[in-house]
Amino acid sequence: MSKSKAIFYHAGCPVCVEAENRVAEALDRQRFDVEIVHLGEHKARLAEARERGVQSVPALVLEGAPFHINFGAALKDLD
Amino acid sequence: MSKSKAIFYHAGCPVCVEAENRVAEALDRQRFDVEIVHLGEHKARLAEARERGVQSVPALVLEGAPFHINFGAALKDLD
Repeated sequence: MSKSKAIFYHAGCPVCVEAENRVAEALDRQRFDVEIVHLGEHKARLAEARERGVQSVPALVLEGAPFHINFGAALKDLD
Repeated sequence: MSKSKAIFYHAGCPVCVEAENRVAEALDRQRFDVEIVHLGEHKARLAEARERGVQSVPALVLEGAPFHINFGAALKDLD
């Protein structure tokens, strides 16, 4: 069975770190390939995140659907 | 190994349903006991949700830590 794609976007903020440690960590690795992307360090991926509907971090994109988890920083402040 | 507790609070709104179908569904059931609570139908649990730091639904509480996922409705509007 091929795995579904999960991308966790963050910017290293405390809210992001907690969401990564708790929510991203809780995903079922048997069913999801989980990629962690630090948008502060990989600004080239900001456009990709925006295209997926991400407006703030931390955010989890599951099979293309964006879910904003609490609020750490707006994407526009990471440019 | 005893499982960790995950509680997904929602109010039946479209944003809630999507988060339930995607995020709550993606949790690792081998490690988490996932309880789904409809606060519109179980208003007696509003106080418990508030005590756990939930301010809006949908929200996921993982081992006591609240994570608000997108925004469907404020808890104060469910009273």
